[in-house]
Amino acid sequence: MSLSTSTTATPVAPSRGRLRPLGLDEVALTGGFWADRQHLNAAATLPHIEDRLEREGWIANFDLAAAGTLPAGRRGREFADSEVYKYLEALAWEIGRSGSTDRAAGALEARFDAITARVAAAQEPDGYLNTMFGRPGQRARWSALGWGHELYCTGHLLQAAVARARTRPGTDDVLVEVARRAADLVCDVFGPGGIESVCGHAEIEPALVEFARVTGEERYLAQAALFVERRGTGTLGDIEFGRSYFQDDMPVRAATVLRGHAVRAGYLSAGAVDVAVERNDAELLAALTTQWENTVARRTYLTGGQGSHHQDEAFGEDWVLPPDRSYSETCAGVASIMFSWRLLLAQGAPRYADLIERTLFNVVATSPSNSGTSFFYANTLHQRRPGTPAPDSDVSPRASSTLRAPWFEVSCCPPNVARTLAGLTAYLATTDDDGLQLHQYAPATIRTALPGGAAIALDVDTAYPRDGVVRVTVRADAGTPWTLTMRVPAWAQGARLIVRTAGDPPAERAAEPGTVHVRHHFREGDVVELHLPVQPRFTAADPRIDAVRGCLAVERGPEVLCLESIDLAAATGGRHTDVAAVRLDADAPPQEADGAVTVRLRPLVAPAGPWPYAAPDPHPDGAAEDGAEDGAEDGFDVPLVPYHDWAERGGSTMRVWLPTDTPAQRG
Amino acid sequence: MSLSTSTTATPVAPSRGRLRPLGLDEVALTGGFWADRQHLNAAATLPHIEDRLEREGWIANFDLAAAGTLPAGRRGREFADSEVYKYLEALAWEIGRSGSTDRAAGALEARFDAITARVAAAQEPDGYLNTMFGRPGQRARWSALGWGHELYCTGHLLQAAVARARTRPGTDDVLVEVARRAADLVCDVFGPGGIESVCGHAEIEPALVEFARVTGEERYLAQAALFVERRGTGTLGDIEFGRSYFQDDMPVRAATVLRGHAVRAGYLSAGAVDVAVERNDAELLAALTTQWENTVARRTYLTGGQGSHHQDEAFGEDWVLPPDRSYSETCAGVASIMFSWRLLLAQGAPRYADLIERTLFNVVATSPSNSGTSFFYANTLHQRRPGTPAPDSDVSPRASSTLRAPWFEVSCCPPNVARTLAGLTAYLATTDDDGLQLHQYAPATIRTALPGGAAIALDVDTAYPRDGVVRVTVRADAGTPWTLTMRVPAWAQGARLIVRTAGDPPAERAAEPGTVHVRHHFREGDVVELHLPVQPRFTAADPRIDAVRGCLAVERGPEVLCLESIDLAAATGGRHTDVAAVRLDADAPPQEADGAVTVRLRPLVAPAGPWPYAAPDPHPDGAAEDGAEDGAEDGFDVPLVPYHDWAERGGSTMRVWLPTDTPAQRG
Repeated sequence: MSLSTSTTATPVAPSRGRLRPLGLDEVALTGGFWADRQHLNAAATLPHIEDRLEREGWIANFDLAAAGTLPAGRRGREFADSEVYKYLEALAWEIGRSGSTDRAAGALEARFDAITARVAAAQEPDGYLNTMFGRPGQRARWSALGWGHELYCTGHLLQAAVARARTRPGTDDVLVEVARRAADLVCDVFGPGGIESVCGHAEIEPALVEFARVTGEERYLAQAALFVERRGTGTLGDIEFGRSYFQDDMPVRAATVLRGHAVRAGYLSAGAVDVAVERNDAELLAALTTQWENTVARRTYLTGGQGSHHQDEAFGEDWVLPPDRSYSETCAGVASIMFSWRLLLAQGAPRYADLIERTLFNVVATSPSNSGTSFFYANTLHQRRPGTPAPDSDVSPRASSTLRAPWFEVSCCPPNVARTLAGLTAYLATTDDDGLQLHQYAPATIRTALPGGAAIALDVDTAYPRDGVVRVTVRADAGTPWTLTMRVPAWAQGARLIVRTAGDPPAERAAEPGTVHVRHHFREGDVVELHLPVQPRFTAADPRIDAVRGCLAVERGPEVLCLESIDLAAATGGRHTDVAAVRLDADAPPQEADGAVTVRLRPLVAPAGPWPYAAPDPHPDGAAEDGAEDGAEDGFDVPLVPYHDWAERGGSTMRVWLPTDTPAQRG
Repeated sequence: MSLSTSTTATPVAPSRGRLRPLGLDEVALTGGFWADRQHLNAAATLPHIEDRLEREGWIANFDLAAAGTLPAGRRGREFADSEVYKYLEALAWEIGRSGSTDRAAGALEARFDAITARVAAAQEPDGYLNTMFGRPGQRARWSALGWGHELYCTGHLLQAAVARARTRPGTDDVLVEVARRAADLVCDVFGPGGIESVCGHAEIEPALVEFARVTGEERYLAQAALFVERRGTGTLGDIEFGRSYFQDDMPVRAATVLRGHAVRAGYLSAGAVDVAVERNDAELLAALTTQWENTVARRTYLTGGQGSHHQDEAFGEDWVLPPDRSYSETCAGVASIMFSWRLLLAQGAPRYADLIERTLFNVVATSPSNSGTSFFYANTLHQRRPGTPAPDSDVSPRASSTLRAPWFEVSCCPPNVARTLAGLTAYLATTDDDGLQLHQYAPATIRTALPGGAAIALDVDTAYPRDGVVRVTVRADAGTPWTLTMRVPAWAQGARLIVRTAGDPPAERAAEPGTVHVRHHFREGDVVELHLPVQPRFTAADPRIDAVRGCLAVERGPEVLCLESIDLAAATGGRHTDVAAVRLDADAPPQEADGAVTVRLRPLVAPAGPWPYAAPDPHPDGAAEDGAEDGAEDGFDVPLVPYHDWAERGGSTMRVWLPTDTPAQRG
């Protein structure tokens, strides 16, 4: 088989699969939740990141390398190079997104070129490019594969080059040539007969496949496949966390669930899907599908977040999903989207888009502040102590911050969010031979063509997720019937579809969760409206998730809501100031009025004592014991906020999962 | 003030305080739960440890140092020296315990002397003794105070010398002289005008005070006080875990609760109590008392275990006590006992002995296997996956083992348990001017004298904790009235006291939790019997401990019980094989028959599905919904085992906290 090179300006461009991704030139966000975030990303986050990369000296490391003065003066951790590459990737997608229409595009180009030149100057004659290894006074190249992140950094270099090649195709781009030399060296060194190992942090795998897709070079795909097959054969040493930390405990195709470091697991899975798709490896794809299913069914937070352990930033055992020690790293959310998007393109099932939507709204959107210049690294679902804001100048030690922080010693998350938001437009829709699929809902214009040549032009109007109506207006007659497919999220019980096509009476029907299809020879002005029920709802957890037993959460559409102490204090006139002091009245469904969702809370009866364990109270003060009259006296209505908005008003305690009655309460 | 040197053969010998500790020559365990463990410790654990110390080369490090061939060949982590010292301390207590009566004492002496000679040979002329620092090719002395464990190792050297001096007093002991030179160097280097810092791992603090108590040297006490006062002034650098990790976030006397690394926190607290007592520092003692109270009320597991985080082996926030990610390091249990015992001697309150008992039975007794040659490092309260036994030759990477392991890369716990068990006899009883206090219950003989000279002779007979009757028989007429004080554990509601003294009718009365006192001119043969209600009981947790909401535990006397899958499978004929699959019938109290405690369980209804969150079931299959007839049909009786016995029959899943009904269960 041979790779077909794609020039679609999109993050993932497989040679085959159920669905075809659209490019940033085919879809545009025109307003609403995600367009606002894309604009903030361009206006605030990208300049913030570049400023920090300069201040921390992580770009200057390349200058030192070029000047031959490393290792003296090198700053940052072993993966600092990768943050520069992720920033370049984000710039490339942003150039592709805003492209020819944006006055700032020239300035973006200049920034991209300037940093690329500094990176390129550091590359050695044989293609090696890493500021941490290989020079006198540094560790030898490839001498620390377990923890050195060398191939990980190369992977992000390749991803930046992929973004560049797809958004500025057809030129002999400097970064693409830098990446080509680096990729060739990787194949020389790690190919057949070379070093038989892998990188402790997966990333080179999807990067090599994508770079193969850009360049048409089969060798890169073969090398990626080799890395995927080697993983799990014990080529990395054993470590205190266990080999599962870097997924070296068992072969990818033997695993049944994701485990170990969540970001590593997600990147590896993404690369393994890429390999499986390009090589038509049904066995490998089936194994990855099973892993996705089991991970989603047993090891994923309500927010879509993944990773339950702070210790090793790792998945826990099945059902270990503590809200107060949730790690749910922002980058693990990005990795999960990478994995799900590839399976969606390969297989077309709406469950993948469901998880992407959940993760976008509740992990990716949660990380950056409203200002776009501070970020959550970990995303706890339960904050027990109000944080204090970090000074702008501060550098937080990774996940320890209880509020968003402007930068981190390990600063993977800010540029990861930036590159995701810049390329987000690509995740809205796909096509197949028969029509177009809408996966995510946002105001947008779509102008593309089906493989047969039929021109598709659609406008999407919606106030989603605030409002549940998604209106698709056809803007051109394709000259032939085609099928519009719209995703109905799994939570959207009772959705309705209304079709208004020229010459026909309006047709309304139920739309079951999954996908709904309308096949028609659409004419300009035809409208398809999906009505999703976004009223707030209670959600309970599988009883095996011990950490939230006896609790309910509140969701509204794709958004998870949460209780913040600032709202609790305001609603109770200061009588209750901590979310630990209340419980939910589970008999009073959440209400929505004037755009605010409220729940009915009651005080939590918690006896003071020298020892927190005692005989159970035979008559617990639970909701079931209270008469309705009592409840009315004791309860108070408190507004919830979307989880992605939490901690925007300063330090607060916060809960997603609210305890209801407490039947086994101590006496 | 001046230090009075004590020669009592006991781990902690303050110059003042409410209670006076007894020596290993004054109390002997004569049978039962703890005597069995002491014998196993002597027969199996101590030889096992010495074998491992030799095999791992940690004793040989001293030989290399003496030969001048370090750092080449040095093995083990930076704290490897301390394991040798803790082993010497354990040997010293074991010599003191078995002493003149044990045929093996000569062999123990020979082992002690041989290792001491190898240690002594490595000491440098100025008193410095550490195999990891200070030589060409090693890091400079005192250059890595945050993580280097140099003073920590010295502390354990001093503790070994203290044990030696107290169990073989009056000689110019080699180890005591080695320790004296090392302590003098510490004072020279870290005293006024010296390095103004502390060790990242507390231990030198209690060690210096104890060594001052042995030697009468005020300078060591002053240095300990200086270390305690310096802690929390930020002399150590900031780290990713935060300065609280090594308690350098705030001064000891300003803190209100223990935080950070649990072993460090416990050792520091023990040393700070020692300083407060010797210096009559009421403010410091009050601060430590508050810290103990808040830690016990909000940050301690039902087992007495402390430390909720794997990441940094640290305390969590208040109420963060997840059973499935409990760390509860064995060494943190030892540290907690050290802290509580010192407060008990200083203040006399029975709550300290309550916590010691709980921690002894459920942490210290849990760590070693029945064979005495493998150990839990961390003590989870919920095992989700059955472990597989480690080969005898294995070295486990710290807490990652799901079964007891014969040794660890970080092997602090085995020798810590060994030294605790060897000296355990000392924790049974104390005296004051007025009489004798029994704190822990085990078959024992006690022969001591009150300060006024009255000779006390008692025998304790009991099958505790299997049986609740503790019979104290007076074996000598002291010639004067005195007071026998017995602790009534906080859980012992309904305890009774029966006094049978010569010439009086038997007197029975209620004994409320706390302490019960009998003042009498006891004659030989007089008997005081305490009847403690040890039938099994349900225990619930404070509702703020989110991780066990909706659960009950079962306790019996001082023992926490647990459900193991091996018993579940046997009791259900293999129908249920995983503790995740059942819930507790909270309406059926635990039953005891033929020495077995059983509870009534039912299947846990857990819907299979692709996503573990859904609308709550309006009619949950909870216990409250079931009629009694239904319950009889669905329930099955399953035996529980003491938590300290768990995992003795191979890999098993296990729960201490059993879910009851699930009112907020998903539909």
